[in-house]
Amino acid sequence: MRKSICNLLIDGTTGEGCRFSGWVRSVRLSKGIAFITVNDGSNLGGIQIVAEQGLPNFEEVSRLGTGSAVQVSGVLVESPAAGQDREVRAEAISIIGPSDETYPLQKKRHTFEYLRSIAHLRPRSNTFGAVFRLRSRLAQAVHQFFSERKFLYVQTPIITSSDCEGAGELFRVTTLDAATPPLVDGSPDFSQDFFGQRTGLTVSGQLEGELFALAFSDIYTFGPTFRAENSNTARHASEFWMIEPEMAFADLADDAALAEDFVKYLCRFALEECAEDMSFFDKHIEKGLLERIRKIAEADFARLDYGEAIQRLQSSGASFNYPVEWGLDLQTEHERYITEQLIGGPAFILNYPRDIKAFYMRQNDDGRTVAAMDLLVPKVGEIIGGSQREERLDRLTDRMTQMGIAQEPLWWYLDSRRWGSCPHAGFGLGFERLVMYLSGMENIRDVIPFPRTPRHAEF
Amino acid sequence: MRKSICNLLIDGTTGEGCRFSGWVRSVRLSKGIAFITVNDGSNLGGIQIVAEQGLPNFEEVSRLGTGSAVQVSGVLVESPAAGQDREVRAEAISIIGPSDETYPLQKKRHTFEYLRSIAHLRPRSNTFGAVFRLRSRLAQAVHQFFSERKFLYVQTPIITSSDCEGAGELFRVTTLDAATPPLVDGSPDFSQDFFGQRTGLTVSGQLEGELFALAFSDIYTFGPTFRAENSNTARHASEFWMIEPEMAFADLADDAALAEDFVKYLCRFALEECAEDMSFFDKHIEKGLLERIRKIAEADFARLDYGEAIQRLQSSGASFNYPVEWGLDLQTEHERYITEQLIGGPAFILNYPRDIKAFYMRQNDDGRTVAAMDLLVPKVGEIIGGSQREERLDRLTDRMTQMGIAQEPLWWYLDSRRWGSCPHAGFGLGFERLVMYLSGMENIRDVIPFPRTPRHAEF
Repeated sequence: MRKSICNLLIDGTTGEGCRFSGWVRSVRLSKGIAFITVNDGSNLGGIQIVAEQGLPNFEEVSRLGTGSAVQVSGVLVESPAAGQDREVRAEAISIIGPSDETYPLQKKRHTFEYLRSIAHLRPRSNTFGAVFRLRSRLAQAVHQFFSERKFLYVQTPIITSSDCEGAGELFRVTTLDAATPPLVDGSPDFSQDFFGQRTGLTVSGQLEGELFALAFSDIYTFGPTFRAENSNTARHASEFWMIEPEMAFADLADDAALAEDFVKYLCRFALEECAEDMSFFDKHIEKGLLERIRKIAEADFARLDYGEAIQRLQSSGASFNYPVEWGLDLQTEHERYITEQLIGGPAFILNYPRDIKAFYMRQNDDGRTVAAMDLLVPKVGEIIGGSQREERLDRLTDRMTQMGIAQEPLWWYLDSRRWGSCPHAGFGLGFERLVMYLSGMENIRDVIPFPRTPRHAEF
Repeated sequence: MRKSICNLLIDGTTGEGCRFSGWVRSVRLSKGIAFITVNDGSNLGGIQIVAEQGLPNFEEVSRLGTGSAVQVSGVLVESPAAGQDREVRAEAISIIGPSDETYPLQKKRHTFEYLRSIAHLRPRSNTFGAVFRLRSRLAQAVHQFFSERKFLYVQTPIITSSDCEGAGELFRVTTLDAATPPLVDGSPDFSQDFFGQRTGLTVSGQLEGELFALAFSDIYTFGPTFRAENSNTARHASEFWMIEPEMAFADLADDAALAEDFVKYLCRFALEECAEDMSFFDKHIEKGLLERIRKIAEADFARLDYGEAIQRLQSSGASFNYPVEWGLDLQTEHERYITEQLIGGPAFILNYPRDIKAFYMRQNDDGRTVAAMDLLVPKVGEIIGGSQREERLDRLTDRMTQMGIAQEPLWWYLDSRRWGSCPHAGFGLGFERLVMYLSGMENIRDVIPFPRTPRHAEF
């Protein structure tokens, strides 16, 4: 099989023959020699090919258009040029798939907006090559992290008849006739739908994840989740991937410890294993990125109670657009002030007011807070949200009653507290938010291969 | 943090103290001593706890119900009992979450049908513990396999406006009013829907995967796919996970080579890394399973042309329910006869008739076949389907015209053949089929945490 350019540069022997394939990024003619950069997506920089006039198809080769697919045979040699160790002296270059001046991705700077309109081609650009290599490596690192710790990977259902927090807006999944759905007394007759009931796309795998944690102790999910919210911001997509670990026999402190380990692991992984792409981001996307990520990797994450955070915000003298008051949720401006100004590094905020949090969070003894946590990081604010779950059946059903949440549809969830219940805790991390944080990319549309947002489901 | 029972058995030191948590599987009283099996899901067998009358809560402990959650402190000691190396002499057992005789998963054999109705509890049983541990390890092994080979993991969209093969029945994804959708001339007005067009759940990530292969050379997808087909068989689910690698600069032979490596890797992985659970399957689910999987892991997979397969079936003298004739698709009975009787091991069937295959498969020079492949394995028949893709724009559009497939909605797919096109190939493997094959489980509902099938979307 062919060798990737990345592997050729890692373990190729100088002076020996090699063969590989890729796409032309640029061709430069100098003193009758063609210098051709070929990239196969396995690394950022590709490799430089030196083609001399002796090649039978030199004329053709020297006019190769950006984007052309080629196969190269040659010899790996030391490169006299700056910025690269080695290059390939071509012995044969065959043109597999030509390209011409109509190719939409010519070698010049394009706006991210324009590149979104050609999402089928943008992975061939430097920036999106780097983004999607990082995304892939991080996804694999997520599995590696949990696999090393023997967490069980559970694929929770995408199509669901429940609605995790009673809050997220769901996409409906249906096979009913789109024009004339069957009705009963004017309401849609979901009993005739594919699943015999109303179904939607999941907003979280947490509840099902808890069921598995109560059998396997340590589990995680990593799969797509959905929000049918009409928000057109740089941080919201209708379809995104979420990582949700859950641990039995664990409390909020264990939860925070896992989250800290996890985030640092991924930061270190990106710095060490994706060095070429990370340097590119540092240079072209966000100056100082490497330093920012290195700080996270080395930090001791702070822990402070929500109540303390409110007090420190109030006594800080800073002015905010949103009110700071016990009982109100923290806004991004508050979160960033805490992590950037008050702490100067990552910080967990613990024990939020019960009334602004979900029904399943464990009620603290003070009667007004729950064992919830958010991890705040400089530059963005919250990046992880989690909690210890309410494992006491009576406290859980009381809270559902107070919040007007019907118990019957969640009979299976309540069952998990009926026999062998135990303290357990978990958190959720939006995978795209993580990729944005580690790459410096500022629009979620630019870290998803084919993003889905209101009015956009192309490709 | 607590130690898992699996890790305790791997690296615990005999004679030293230990502490762990889990759920009671059984309690047996003998000569005033309680023998308690505790399982935390990290392995199949759990560990035996020996509790003596000296324990302050001995009475309570000796009456512990199946399913109770406990925390145990004690000393790891050599076990005199058969079937286990070590056990734990309890120093303290605290009851974290009790269970009683109403627990639906008492220690007796339940039917798989019954266990499906308590899918929220069945992971706590031996069989489903083993199934979901295997599923998890295999999923992680899939990522490991491709990660070792530097394939890029791409998450293709779940919500889609295209329909990969023009064939699969799609679930519709919508936020239009379910009772009174907006109409234009009696047809639903999808321009008012969330994405401004009709959208559904993906049946395959292949087409988007190809776009990424044409940028990164070697890629794979691993995500959920959907079929809105009203089939109630043991092998069909409405929601399942699929693995779809795609390689640029690769032909059908490369594709088969990858598929062979992949299947053998997963077989070896299951045998070596999931030995305890695999032995359980061999003993309780399918006698001879280990031998069957070992044979696959060690086999040289055969390769034969579809035409040759038809001839050999015709001259075999065997009688089939479905006709055997050049131009007709192979049925499971034919596939199994080929792999079990004619070859006696795994076999690729190559180059199927063009008219029974999808539009994107590469047309062979004979004018009547395409570069398609199926991998057949004993016991089930087809387990992998793949092809080299048609990279020539004119041949591709000709074929679409012949098959009545509109080009306009696939403009982006066709674009990938316009600039820098190159030979590429890939395949698809249904992940649940793989888990069934390696565990011996015979119903797809029993290898999915919370299966979705017609009229079933519980939990």
